[in-house]
Amino acid sequence: MPPLTCPIPLQRYPQVLLAHGGGGRLMHQLIEEMFVATFQPDSAWQHDAASLRMGGDRLAFTTDSYVVTPLFFPGGDIGSLAVHGTVNDLAMAGARPRYLSLSFILEEGLPMATLWQVVQSVQAAAAQSQVQIVTGDTKVVDRGKGDGLFINTAGIGTIAHEDFIGPSSIQPGDAVLLSGDIGRHGIAILSARAGLAFETTLESDSAPLAIAVLDLLNQVSVHCLRDLTRGGLASALNEIALSAQQTIHIETTAIPVQEDVQGACELLGLDPLYVANEGRFVAFVPAPAADTALACLQHYNPSAQIIGTVIDAQPAQVILQNPIGTQRLLDFLSGEQLPRIC
Amino acid sequence: MPPLTCPIPLQRYPQVLLAHGGGGRLMHQLIEEMFVATFQPDSAWQHDAASLRMGGDRLAFTTDSYVVTPLFFPGGDIGSLAVHGTVNDLAMAGARPRYLSLSFILEEGLPMATLWQVVQSVQAAAAQSQVQIVTGDTKVVDRGKGDGLFINTAGIGTIAHEDFIGPSSIQPGDAVLLSGDIGRHGIAILSARAGLAFETTLESDSAPLAIAVLDLLNQVSVHCLRDLTRGGLASALNEIALSAQQTIHIETTAIPVQEDVQGACELLGLDPLYVANEGRFVAFVPAPAADTALACLQHYNPSAQIIGTVIDAQPAQVILQNPIGTQRLLDFLSGEQLPRIC
Repeated sequence: MPPLTCPIPLQRYPQVLLAHGGGGRLMHQLIEEMFVATFQPDSAWQHDAASLRMGGDRLAFTTDSYVVTPLFFPGGDIGSLAVHGTVNDLAMAGARPRYLSLSFILEEGLPMATLWQVVQSVQAAAAQSQVQIVTGDTKVVDRGKGDGLFINTAGIGTIAHEDFIGPSSIQPGDAVLLSGDIGRHGIAILSARAGLAFETTLESDSAPLAIAVLDLLNQVSVHCLRDLTRGGLASALNEIALSAQQTIHIETTAIPVQEDVQGACELLGLDPLYVANEGRFVAFVPAPAADTALACLQHYNPSAQIIGTVIDAQPAQVILQNPIGTQRLLDFLSGEQLPRIC
Repeated sequence: MPPLTCPIPLQRYPQVLLAHGGGGRLMHQLIEEMFVATFQPDSAWQHDAASLRMGGDRLAFTTDSYVVTPLFFPGGDIGSLAVHGTVNDLAMAGARPRYLSLSFILEEGLPMATLWQVVQSVQAAAAQSQVQIVTGDTKVVDRGKGDGLFINTAGIGTIAHEDFIGPSSIQPGDAVLLSGDIGRHGIAILSARAGLAFETTLESDSAPLAIAVLDLLNQVSVHCLRDLTRGGLASALNEIALSAQQTIHIETTAIPVQEDVQGACELLGLDPLYVANEGRFVAFVPAPAADTALACLQHYNPSAQIIGTVIDAQPAQVILQNPIGTQRLLDFLSGEQLPRIC
């Protein structure tokens, strides 16, 4: 068999760019055209969490590597993030997180005390998230060939319900709920980065979401769930709209953004809709269930809101409705806004 | 709760050393004293593969990160290695490998064609190993903060039998079988490293082991299995002896080492017993089953041998019997022999 042609145009992208990991258009292209295209023939390959039937059970299986810099930031660290991120991916598949693996890539010279602090943080976050760390691995790379430490966690969860939760289940008329205020994780990371003149007392929103999600699933039928990590709310909504081939209509004023996050974004020239979160998600539910769903989410976070609705219009896109009545298209993130946020 | 004291003595080891990932004594200490001690209270934490009961099924779950340098070497590359290593960890738990996750940490500037070559190699190795790549992740770190690309794979396998395969099942009298000649992976990596004067046409032994292992499990009762990766045969036998609290007696002359591997080791001052493999394992079986087990293993690799036996003697250790009748202790690897071999 002759070698296949690289599906990413090499003349335009001869090298990997930071934006290929940024959650925006280039990452989406890399995933769809290289990974899904290669692995799909053999499997229902999914970048978030795969749903597997094993024996009589339905399992969710997911993985994420964590390369956040700095390792410690207001409201969390790479250890807690590596637990929250992966249990949240399981929760977004409607699964109850059960088991995590934990793999370290350490750079020679990393202070042993730093590793110990991260290991304790992993264990505390796992206990809070009701998952067990059951297996692991440790690699060490030469000085200058890593960046302190990277973590990979993979997770297994159990799926108790029979609904398919994903973009293809979305229907026109569905309400779009947001589980809380956005932008705090990204701004907390930026504030912790050396050399940045800007400071804030904001803490990351990094948190495990499974308990709220499982409660929501108990109360209403849920069509789609997505956590708002790299690329923020805007990228999540665009991915869903594209995948579902539906248009999503969002009321700008309904999106909760804390005043200090808004202020920091204005100072930094960022749009909070594109800033990463690590403890926020959107849920798509049938319109009649919207109020019940909102009450459920507000029990866990009073800033949860209904922010929009799915409408029957083509092409599939995300439209922002401004308070003065104008509309604008909310596009995928182009380029790289905040590298190494998770 | 006051912060716990770091279980690794910080005055002696203030920083992570390459040897903490090398498969020898320091890695063993880090795993046992930091990871097992921290995660064990909540789980049967295992560094190789965890055995989980979910619903009516028994699953094996494992993870490994791959940081091998160079990315391409005689007989394989980081992509095939990342599949073989993880399916082999599942096989060592007596499981049939089913699903893998695939997570990349890419360094900005990595040639896109290199990534594509590795992705194709992953898919080819997965097809050969009869596993599906079902989910993944991509992170990109800044130039100079990685080393081209690192891969993590986590794997899920199904365990069909009810035996417990592990050091605690070993009995005095058990035969120790080795699945083939040793040392080729480590020597192939060394030969591929730039700046090394030594050259060889040797290829890595990197290969998936599950089919041979499942066949062996069908034919005989197996007490313990271990693949011979970092730290080689010597480290695997020492870990098993220590964990089982049994003494293992090995006939030096029974250990198959290819002549060119032996020659390369002499040139480089290496002991093949400590050199890494990626397609070799030891199996502990009851003495009456030894011949059947050997015939099974030789069907897959004619160089498989019975290399020793478990004896009822304390303290637990590994003893090498030389042809002239002398004995010596085979110890754990101290320090770091060959960094970044996998």
